[in-house]
Amino acid sequence: MTVEIGVTGATGRMGREVVAAVRDREGCEVAFAINREPDGVTVDGTTVEPAGKIDTLLEEREPDAVVDFTGPASALEYARACAEAETDAPVGFVTGTTGFSDEAFADLEAASESIPLLHAPNFARGVQALVNVVGQAVRNLPGYDVELVETHHNGKRDAPSGTANRLLSEIEANGEFTGRNHGREGEEPREEREIGVHALRAGTITGEHEVVLAGNDEELRLTHRAEDRGVFAAGAVDAATWIAGRKAGRYEFADVIDE
Amino acid sequence: MTVEIGVTGATGRMGREVVAAVRDREGCEVAFAINREPDGVTVDGTTVEPAGKIDTLLEEREPDAVVDFTGPASALEYARACAEAETDAPVGFVTGTTGFSDEAFADLEAASESIPLLHAPNFARGVQALVNVVGQAVRNLPGYDVELVETHHNGKRDAPSGTANRLLSEIEANGEFTGRNHGREGEEPREEREIGVHALRAGTITGEHEVVLAGNDEELRLTHRAEDRGVFAAGAVDAATWIAGRKAGRYEFADVIDE
Amino acid sequence: MTVEIGVTGATGRMGREVVAAVRDREGCEVAFAINREPDGVTVDGTTVEPAGKIDTLLEEREPDAVVDFTGPASALEYARACAEAETDAPVGFVTGTTGFSDEAFADLEAASESIPLLHAPNFARGVQALVNVVGQAVRNLPGYDVELVETHHNGKRDAPSGTANRLLSEIEANGEFTGRNHGREGEEPREEREIGVHALRAGTITGEHEVVLAGNDEELRLTHRAEDRGVFAAGAVDAATWIAGRKAGRYEFADVIDE
Amino acid sequence: MTVEIGVTGATGRMGREVVAAVRDREGCEVAFAINREPDGVTVDGTTVEPAGKIDTLLEEREPDAVVDFTGPASALEYARACAEAETDAPVGFVTGTTGFSDEAFADLEAASESIPLLHAPNFARGVQALVNVVGQAVRNLPGYDVELVETHHNGKRDAPSGTANRLLSEIEANGEFTGRNHGREGEEPREEREIGVHALRAGTITGEHEVVLAGNDEELRLTHRAEDRGVFAAGAVDAATWIAGRKAGRYEFADVIDE
Repeated sequence: MTVEIGVTGATGRMGREVVAAVRDREGCEVAFAINREPDGVTVDGTTVEPAGKIDTLLEEREPDAVVDFTGPASALEYARACAEAETDAPVGFVTGTTGFSDEAFADLEAASESIPLLHAPNFARGVQALVNVVGQAVRNLPGYDVELVETHHNGKRDAPSGTANRLLSEIEANGEFTGRNHGREGEEPREEREIGVHALRAGTITGEHEVVLAGNDEELRLTHRAEDRGVFAAGAVDAATWIAGRKAGRYEFADVIDE
Repeated sequence: MTVEIGVTGATGRMGREVVAAVRDREGCEVAFAINREPDGVTVDGTTVEPAGKIDTLLEEREPDAVVDFTGPASALEYARACAEAETDAPVGFVTGTTGFSDEAFADLEAASESIPLLHAPNFARGVQALVNVVGQAVRNLPGYDVELVETHHNGKRDAPSGTANRLLSEIEANGEFTGRNHGREGEEPREEREIGVHALRAGTITGEHEVVLAGNDEELRLTHRAEDRGVFAAGAVDAATWIAGRKAGRYEFADVIDE
Repeated sequence: MTVEIGVTGATGRMGREVVAAVRDREGCEVAFAINREPDGVTVDGTTVEPAGKIDTLLEEREPDAVVDFTGPASALEYARACAEAETDAPVGFVTGTTGFSDEAFADLEAASESIPLLHAPNFARGVQALVNVVGQAVRNLPGYDVELVETHHNGKRDAPSGTANRLLSEIEANGEFTGRNHGREGEEPREEREIGVHALRAGTITGEHEVVLAGNDEELRLTHRAEDRGVFAAGAVDAATWIAGRKAGRYEFADVIDE
Repeated sequence: MTVEIGVTGATGRMGREVVAAVRDREGCEVAFAINREPDGVTVDGTTVEPAGKIDTLLEEREPDAVVDFTGPASALEYARACAEAETDAPVGFVTGTTGFSDEAFADLEAASESIPLLHAPNFARGVQALVNVVGQAVRNLPGYDVELVETHHNGKRDAPSGTANRLLSEIEANGEFTGRNHGREGEEPREEREIGVHALRAGTITGEHEVVLAGNDEELRLTHRAEDRGVFAAGAVDAATWIAGRKAGRYEFADVIDE
């Protein structure tokens, strides 16, 4: 059985990677590729169609899943289109879009009543592994100081990264901490249970996250490094393949990894 | 209740640290300190007595536990002395000695029929945490290549370290691997499921262990660093305190950490 | 003035990157692209011609320089073709090919009597910077132990890498060392002035080189990491642009950087 | 010839290390050890005398140099005492004290009219090597983004460290930069030529400084790590031995290293 995948934002940086990843993956096919302003472009041999045709494309091509890396407004619109599409089987929606307001995110989640939906800030399998081991390490080393360092290319505009926030939640869920400190300067001694959070921005670095646990004359450093944006596209295709045919509901990328 | 601890090899590098760690720890006292060739020395204010007096000292001072960092022959002798000592309660034996032959190790284990015995190649709490997270990471990233790098001071004579071997066992228990490669040179392509093992020796570095998992345009690095030998002594005293009063049997440092 | 660049091995992994880098660079143009077995392919829009046509192409298109990432035999053949071509100005030859025998390398160098020739094992600007700082650090820290760790993707067949060898030469030229040790196992204490050399092979890592200097309760780590093969192609195009119009002779990539 | 060294602040953390380092060094002797509140203590077998006796001690014992790790007020007082002491040869003054106001520092420098004076924020030989290589790397990689990460134990009260400031001056002296950013949070894109400065505080880490240069699909990381406070004391004794017998003037630790 071939898994048919629709790709949104197909002329964007991540969209292009997803189209390529679907084409490279055995047993997967591009059902359609769309973009807000397609400009008659082809991506890796696939014609990109205008976003306005999403309803028609869903019903004609009946994809198993749609993979989306766009912006909050577009992502929400596409998720709704999938939820409302009149197809034989529900169309899974996999999105790595970030920056939703709480309200928009609630709207996104509502789509999971009629389709299987998976949102993740990061589709690198190794990032999920990092989240897992960080939780365990914090439990194993109670009372140790924790600091987080994340490094991205010089064009990234916000800090900390979505993945850093995911890691911080995991750290806080597994130990007793009092707050986050986003940069020390001058006379600023460490509060006993604060977490230091440091955002490096330099060059073309794809993405690195490091959690440091230190105490008692020793330290543990847990570090993930993405070498290429392709790792995120590959993980999103893993998720799309996994979600195809599942029943409606909200899923996590951790579910994909654990299986 | 005060925990009374006997220390063997008390004039050695680790022995000195253990004597200091016991004295620093609230609720602990040095029951006695011995060494093969004591030379009338005092360590941190404690007189070091000759190894030959071990039987008398055990029976007179009735320690709760003995902490041992010596060599295989001495460690075995001391473990037997504890097992055979006529004391009110069994004397726990905690040892970080490495380099046992299989036969000598079996003899050591035999002592655990009459006393609680805990052997660990490394008493850093963080090393145990590293072992735990390495196992989990290998399970989470099936098929990824694994390499191990360990770094120690230039006086360390054997490779890989005992801790590296402990990590390698954990890696092998959690994935499919075909063998270990202790250094590549010349035309020597990687065998698909081998584990590369690399021993750096430089300067005065106390001890660093790093496990690298890589594949699919990403990598995860899990690293432990001991800053000072004191971390091992403190962990051994943790173990001695924990083992005091337990029933005979074989215990792991993981048991101490998990509690 | 446009710099016209010929590219050999144009359908190989590095050749493709070079073609793309020339096209991206303002003021540069692809003069021709060739390969042993061109198979009628186009690379990034450029038709790849058969290697046998090199003489004709050189004389017809009169490139300023040729960039070569092939194998020792091909590289030598192409260098000779450039040296013997009847062109108005000498054609510069820039090569990143490695694995020459001493004899073949001497033949390669002979071409520099009639053309400007630049050979470098690595065209990353940062690698040249690493070579420079490693030399200085070894001079600044006499007597410190030195170890080198290089990490590459799991398909790399030889060890150590060409860049590692370049670094080792620099280390040895700046201090007193007795030999190299490519991997320690068992009872193998460090010889006082040996250099440990460690080759990690894992995943898809483009290339990392780290030099560790340790002694006296401190350590210095000097690390270069290439994130993408594109960095090498960009450096080779830097070199081709720099060499264009120079007089015959042997040049180093350091000359390009220092300017 | 034996080098006679006076030690101030001898019961402090660094003072104790200096006394031990002088005693360990062949050809060196402790001329005297003083402290503001000596309390009748001995340090490593040497009686600590009250600070008030400095003039008498200088004239009676005629040390070749004094090593000082105290506070700005004390350091200034001791430097003046050396400058004014009636001794056969001038007494060298080596100080690692930090936190001087500009005015106090000018007063300190004034002492160098009559004695050889050496002030350094860090006496690790490797830190000086790091400063050297960082300057060179910034020159070799113009336009690359630069970020600095420094890590110290959780009790350090100020940020960035003195050594970090020394590195920042070196970076700024070797390239074009517009400012420093001590921590990014929220929507805060990188200014093109700013330097990011990050202060981690965790556990018992003695001191680590890392400079990252990134651009063009590559990065260079230059890292120094002190494992033990002893490295600073050993460097200060190097400086005291080197300064003994020199003519009056201001010297740098770099002069000691370069020789």
